[in-house]
Formats: sequence, structure tokens, C-alpha cells
Amino acid sequence: MSRHSAGKSGIALTEKQRIAWLRLIRSDNVGPATFRDLINNFGTAERALEMLPELSQRGGATRAIRIATKDEAERELEFCTKFGAVFVGIGEPHYPPALRQIDAAPPILAMKGNGATAIRPSIGIVGSRNASISGVKMATLLARDCGAAGYTITSGLARGIDTAAHNASLATGTMAAMAGGLDQPYPPENIGLLKAIWDGRGVAISEMPFGWEPRARDFPRRNRLIAGTSLGVAVIEAASRSGSLITARLAADFGRLVFAVPGSPMDPRCHGTNTLLKNGSIVTTEALDLLEALSPLSNIDLFAQPQVEEPAYEESETFHQPPGDVERSMVIDALGPTPVEVNDIIRHTQLSPSSVYLVMLELDIAGRLQRHPGGLVSLSFAD
Amino acid sequence: MSRHSAGKSGIALTEKQRIAWLRLIRSDNVGPATFRDLINNFGTAERALEMLPELSQRGGATRAIRIATKDEAERELEFCTKFGAVFVGIGEPHYPPALRQIDAAPPILAMKGNGATAIRPSIGIVGSRNASISGVKMATLLARDCGAAGYTITSGLARGIDTAAHNASLATGTMAAMAGGLDQPYPPENIGLLKAIWDGRGVAISEMPFGWEPRARDFPRRNRLIAGTSLGVAVIEAASRSGSLITARLAADFGRLVFAVPGSPMDPRCHGTNTLLKNGSIVTTEALDLLEALSPLSNIDLFAQPQVEEPAYEESETFHQPPGDVERSMVIDALGPTPVEVNDIIRHTQLSPSSVYLVMLELDIAGRLQRHPGGLVSLSFAD
Repeated sequence: MSRHSAGKSGIALTEKQRIAWLRLIRSDNVGPATFRDLINNFGTAERALEMLPELSQRGGATRAIRIATKDEAERELEFCTKFGAVFVGIGEPHYPPALRQIDAAPPILAMKGNGATAIRPSIGIVGSRNASISGVKMATLLARDCGAAGYTITSGLARGIDTAAHNASLATGTMAAMAGGLDQPYPPENIGLLKAIWDGRGVAISEMPFGWEPRARDFPRRNRLIAGTSLGVAVIEAASRSGSLITARLAADFGRLVFAVPGSPMDPRCHGTNTLLKNGSIVTTEALDLLEALSPLSNIDLFAQPQVEEPAYEESETFHQPPGDVERSMVIDALGPTPVEVNDIIRHTQLSPSSVYLVMLELDIAGRLQRHPGGLVSLSFAD
Repeated sequence: MSRHSAGKSGIALTEKQRIAWLRLIRSDNVGPATFRDLINNFGTAERALEMLPELSQRGGATRAIRIATKDEAERELEFCTKFGAVFVGIGEPHYPPALRQIDAAPPILAMKGNGATAIRPSIGIVGSRNASISGVKMATLLARDCGAAGYTITSGLARGIDTAAHNASLATGTMAAMAGGLDQPYPPENIGLLKAIWDGRGVAISEMPFGWEPRARDFPRRNRLIAGTSLGVAVIEAASRSGSLITARLAADFGRLVFAVPGSPMDPRCHGTNTLLKNGSIVTTEALDLLEALSPLSNIDLFAQPQVEEPAYEESETFHQPPGDVERSMVIDALGPTPVEVNDIIRHTQLSPSSVYLVMLELDIAGRLQRHPGGLVSLSFAD
């Protein structure tokens, strides 16, 4: 796939835009939600980049935030190209369609492999690293049969269940969501598997910068990619409080189906999956259980019309006047350590929504705003 | 317990009544449903016994049916007493309260052991004879913890799961439902367990005559006793098309809760239980799952007022005139090989319900009526 191909649908970023997007998402205090709000407020990534120092200052940052330079972004883009990978922006043709639907989707993904794999309907298959023989067998059967039915099988490249799911779907197309940079395979024993994926038997995706070594806190974010790209997630063997359960919870939050394979209550590796079943996940003993439940979802216009849901990402020149000091104080006073809804702040302060959003953006860029699931926000105690 | 003790509630059969009940249920073509209809129509078992030859003849029997003699019934009662057991009629204080609620409950049960065990709220625990180690462990945990919580644990005395469930609840009280006569232990290796139950660490029940060796077709009837006596049935390991699934289906038919322990889809012993889970049985990994689901049911007035639901079993002297030949022909013409509802026959023939029921009783006693689940009836092709 070419990073400039616009295909039949979707936007195509210009080289200049792609560099601006990359600079913006790689700058301090800019996560996917902030990125989205910046584009919504300032129309383009370039204008948002210009505004960052001012926003940070108005938001009360105690020191200047680090903004990725044009040079850095160009070097990352160059590295990406040499690596045989591409950066795909949200709304571009090879961006995974289901991922676009989630709240605060990554604005840009690094991808290497067969881009077609990324845009087919996907099923996530995850589970214990320390899997049993029958767990591995189950992952193999589900991945093979769902792959044969036309689904991309997405997993996290981890040991155990993930590895089995990827291996069993190399023939049909598998997607590996990586916790570190695209060039940072983990665990080391799966480098061969990852190379097969890079070589076109699937696709690897990452939202982290090239060179980023995965740390413990990056794995929940990787799990979010698995849940976000999949129409349904199947969990095979998961202990209580395991990462697979995070993936399952995220999938449920995104309105995706959660499947769990039953197992003996005597095996701690099945405690998490059995708990999922108690909470209403779909009992799964064969691929048919997944295929039957997902078939009504697999042709939704999510795949037919990739642009519909993201008009805000069509860059524009509209932006708003900065809020005054009085307005800023009112919003800060209304915020506290307890997460609240933005609408409540608007109602409480009786300010215009755009003013409230702008103050929050300032606080965010200044590192003083914390974002919580469900779009809630609170004041950060970090500084 | 004494077979004459009326306790605080319920009826107490006289010796004469008990012998008449025993004669009636031991006679040809008289099952629990026919027994109930006979008492409803003729007021007492004695009057029903008098009517049997006439009913059989009017129903078109080709040869005389065998009616248990007074002598035979007295001998069985005597054997029962010498054996240290009792016959308990439906509505008597030691008759299992939940069993009284099912359609066509056995009118009389032979019981040996601690009668108090039979009238406590009960949980059925059943499963594979060829159980895994972890299945046996699960049965042990569930039976022990539910027993400790005050429930009688009911099972079928079979190898594997049943044996483990009984053994783990000997300390708190276990109920064994037998497929053959009360004096016919099966399988032979469980004679020691059965003796402990007979000796008061539980209670054994049977609806079959003393001396009756269990045959394959008697086991579903035994399963009906387990399902009928229990507020909920837990299935631990069950292959597809196994007897435990019959017990689960019967329990569901009786409006009881069905619990299933999840297991690996790779183990054929878990196919039945996983299918139960797919069909809505309660995911069960510990006793708490049973206790929480059952606690609202364990104090229903089923146990406080054992008589309320069975007024028909208070013998009376009311009975009806026999139907005429025209009426009889109309009912027979309305019946066919396809099971139908009795109400449909009443509507179709426009005869009085009592006439229709009496003709059906005649056909039944003559061996020409087949009864199906849900109270449906059809003409028998047996003769």
C-alpha cells in the first residue's frame, strides 16, 4: 500500500499535512482526544501547532511544553519509509474502519504489511500468555476458522494465545497491534512471526513512535487498539485481573461483542473468562459462535462509507477567539479532582461551549487536565 | 420418622388408605398422572380400584388389566417396614415439598433414612459418571458448601459426580433418588454410601416397588425425581445427550433453576454443560453462584404450606356418571397419533370436560392413551 493512495473513499493527507499531524501527536500533552479537540478548534494541525505555546501558557503551564519539530517529524517519516512502513491518518483508506468509530481514536498509525488486512472486518482473539495446550488449540481453531470465513484476526503478538491466533491466521491475514514502536518487536521470540506479518501475511500497527520500547503502561493502550479494530473480541483463558480482561472491557465499552471460552473453575487461567461469561459474554466453544453473532455486524456501513463519522477531521480554517481571564477562572473553579462531564461545566458556568472547550484545551496542553473514560474530565494534581 | 406422623402440616393417610394408594399405583396402566385423574374423578383410591375393571373394559382393553391385590400391597408394606423404610404419600409431611409441585408427581414414595432431609430445600447436583478429577473436586466443593448453607444435596447415586456430591454432603444431609426399588442399590460399589444414607446421614427415595431392578428406561424417571425435588439443579461435566442433560431439561420444565459448570470445549465431558450455558443456564464456578440465585426461592410458601397446591388429593366421595357410547366415540375420533391438548378435544367435541376426562381415563386404563410432556395426549398404537 502507498501512503498517498486515497483509494475509492476517504481522505488523503498531503505530505505537509502528514508531517504536521505527526508533529502534533508527538508533542507533549497531546493525546488522541486532545489532538481531535485541537483540530476541531483550530481547523488544521499546522494552526494547532502554532497555538500550542500560547495555549499552554494561558492554561497555566509552569514550564514550556516540548513541541515536536518539523525536522523530527520528517526524520520519523523518513525512517518509516526506509523501514517499509507507512503512516496512515484517521480517515485515510487503510485506517482500520472499526477503530475510527471509537472515542479518541489514534489520529495516525504506523503500519507495515498488507494494508488490505487492516480494512477487513476483524475479530480480536486474546488470552493468557501462559496458555494451556487446549487453550492454544482453541485459539488455533477459532483463528483458523474465523480467518477462513473472511475475518482479519487481530491480536497483541504476546506469548501463548496471541501467538497461536496470529500463527493460525497467517494464511488468511492477521493484524498485530504493538505496544511499542513498529520497529520494536516484543516478545523477542516472536520476531519470526512479526517478520512474516511485515512481509505481507498480515499487517502490524502501532500508534507509538518508531524506536519506542514498550513499557508496562503501554500494554493497555495496545489492548485498546485490539478492541478498537475488532467487531468482536474472543477471550481464551484469562486469569483474574489480566490484560485480556482489559481488552474485553474496552471492547464492551466500544459496543463490540465480547466472546469467552468456558474453562474449568479449577484452572486459574479460566477465572477471568468464566467471570466474563457470568457477566454476559457470549459462550464460545467453536468459530460458529463468533460467526453467527458477528454476521449481522460485518457489513455495516462503517465499511462502506469510511468518512461519514469523522467530518471534524476534514481540516478547515474555522477557529475561535481565545476566552477571557474571567471565563478561564470560571471553568477552572468549576473543575476539581472529581471527574465531571463537560456538559455539566457548560451548564454550571453558563459560558458558551466553545469557550469551555478552549479553556479545557489550554489546561490540557498545560498538563493540568485529566481525561477519564466516558469523556469525563478533572483537574490534574500532577503539578 | 414414622409413617403415621402428620407433623404440623399436611395430611396423614390411614393404614387402609395407604394400602389402597399402593394397590392403585402398582396396578397396570396407572402412572402418577392417571392416579391423580382417578382420585380426582372417583374421590378415593378404593373407589378407583373398584372402577378399574369397568374403566378398562369401557376403554376397549382387549384383555383384563392386572390390579394389585390387597394382599400384595400389604406384603409390600410389611417388607417396607421390616426394611426400616416408610411409604410417604403426596401431601404427607415428609413428602419432598418441591416434588409435590410438579405435574404428575409420584403419589407415593418409599423412603429410608432421615425424613427431615427430604423436606429441606434441596439442590440437585448431577454429572458425568466418567468424571475428571477436577469435576469430582467441583462436585465436592459445591455439595459441601451448599450443604453447609442448609440445603439438602440430591443426586442419583451414580458413579462419578453423583457419588462425589453425595459423599461431600453426608455430613449435612444428602438425598439419593433411586432408579430401582429402595432395596436395589445401583451401582454395586455405592452400597456403602447408600448404607450411610439409610442409617440417617441422608435419605433414599424411590417410586418403584421393592425388589424392582433398575433398567435403562427407569433412569429418566429417576432423573425426574432429582429435578422435581430440587429448587435448582447443577450440572458438572455432561457429555452431549447424557442423562444429566435430561435432568437439566426436566428441571427447566418444572420451572427450577439450571446451573452449569463451564469446562474446556476440548473435553467431550463438557460439551453438554457448555451447551447448557449457551442456552441460558447459570454460569457456576462456586457454591455462591447457586446460593445467591436460589436464596429468593428457598423460603417460598411451598415449604410453609404444603397443602395449598394439592386440594385434589384430599379424598372425597364426589364422582361422575360414566359417559355414553356417543360421547366416547366422539373423544376417540378426536384423538389421533399426534399429541394434542385436552382443552382442544373439549372445544372440538363440545362435550363437558368431565366426560372428556373420563373417556380419556378409560382409554388410559385400557392402555390406549399415551401421555406426553406438557399434558398432551395421543392414541396409543401399542394395541
